[in-house]
Amino acid sequence: MGTTQLETVPEPKYWHLRTVLSEALDSEFTVGEILPNERDLAARFGVARATLRQALEQLELEGRLQRRRGVGTTVAPPRVGVAVGTGQHAWPGMQGDDRQPVDCTLATPPAAVAAALETARDEAVHIVRSTRTTHGQAIAAELLYVPQASVPDLSAIDAPSGPARARAVLRGLQRLELEGRDSAVELGSARADDAKELDRLPGAPVLVVTTRFLAAGRTAALSVATYRADTCRLTFGASGGVEIQDGPQRQAS
Amino acid sequence: MGTTQLETVPEPKYWHLRTVLSEALDSEFTVGEILPNERDLAARFGVARATLRQALEQLELEGRLQRRRGVGTTVAPPRVGVAVGTGQHAWPGMQGDDRQPVDCTLATPPAAVAAALETARDEAVHIVRSTRTTHGQAIAAELLYVPQASVPDLSAIDAPSGPARARAVLRGLQRLELEGRDSAVELGSARADDAKELDRLPGAPVLVVTTRFLAAGRTAALSVATYRADTCRLTFGASGGVEIQDGPQRQAS
Repeated sequence: MGTTQLETVPEPKYWHLRTVLSEALDSEFTVGEILPNERDLAARFGVARATLRQALEQLELEGRLQRRRGVGTTVAPPRVGVAVGTGQHAWPGMQGDDRQPVDCTLATPPAAVAAALETARDEAVHIVRSTRTTHGQAIAAELLYVPQASVPDLSAIDAPSGPARARAVLRGLQRLELEGRDSAVELGSARADDAKELDRLPGAPVLVVTTRFLAAGRTAALSVATYRADTCRLTFGASGGVEIQDGPQRQAS
Repeated sequence: MGTTQLETVPEPKYWHLRTVLSEALDSEFTVGEILPNERDLAARFGVARATLRQALEQLELEGRLQRRRGVGTTVAPPRVGVAVGTGQHAWPGMQGDDRQPVDCTLATPPAAVAAALETARDEAVHIVRSTRTTHGQAIAAELLYVPQASVPDLSAIDAPSGPARARAVLRGLQRLELEGRDSAVELGSARADDAKELDRLPGAPVLVVTTRFLAAGRTAALSVATYRADTCRLTFGASGGVEIQDGPQRQAS
């Protein structure tokens, strides 16, 4: 990366620097490569450290860079496409589902979850905790809230706790006919327990996907899944979806 | 909000403060209310300014707070649910679509878009620029890339440019039978032009939705839409979707 002085441009300086850096990442760096330190980079581009840092933050938001403690800033691999909305008629835990159930508890859900499930405010529901992993790395932590009424035949004796219990709840759900599901995606910040599971710091940006599973005319289960926003793009759609090669940020910029 | 000293907790201090603040927002503040200044808030909770700022940043990520220049930090209204994946068989611009076409140009798209559209690298495509607004506020800026082959009957004479041209391209698309579409959502940062349209600063976190529209066995159009991440939750699903009252961050915390 040679010395490149930024000319005066109408857009903010850090934004222009982001574009210049983005092109440099494409042409001069390989995935996993460690970037020069901030002082050197700032000097090369003739900008203040603060401007450089803003540009690096943008590129981190866009998934182009990763900052890791003790390593520095590295060039990130392309984001992984994770199917979220496909299989409209599959319950969690069905064949082909890559969720790993890790635990199951019986507890009172948050008020808004109880409202969505139409359970009484103090009614305990099964809470199945799962993770999704890709290439050995956890990409999502999911809580699935299941009213006891949705799995009436569940036996406490067979599987009192842990992954076995979680699987028993999922098997119970699969006895219901799934009528449909809908999802919402929004930006959030990782809660402490999710952050730990996802190898992120608490408060890191995440994509939170809420999914309602509908059976017998009501919400039979509600899932709140937290996806790493740095490494994931969430894919929706019934057409099976050939992956678009690059992320839209690269396409559009 | 009284004086509340934070006790020692295993999670990071700013994260615990975020939870305490979040509860205070629910119980003591109303939407639109301006928060006390940072110095006062830090003193009340017995934390350093830096800790307070980190907690405020989390709550901004989660859409609980808005920071506006010259106003200060205010309590944000609940996020607006915006349907993104419904109407699997509707083209953009069909009846009931809330997109407002603002412009249309003929230009060479970014390389990744050309690859997805299977057009030649230097082939110009129609680029329809639209906005989506809710309650008078722009929530999304969209670029729809349409190969000339998808709208062969388009007349340059009828509508040479601007919104009229954009509508002519959309009408042309609607003559094709839409076979399906798929979408991907990922975190991004607002480009300068989108940021202006969305009343955000360049680099603000946004949700970028890429949608492929399939007709005659190929990608007939590709849309890259930038949604405000602070005010929007994107909803997907065929079931029509009753809105879940609160965002999942409130549900899960």
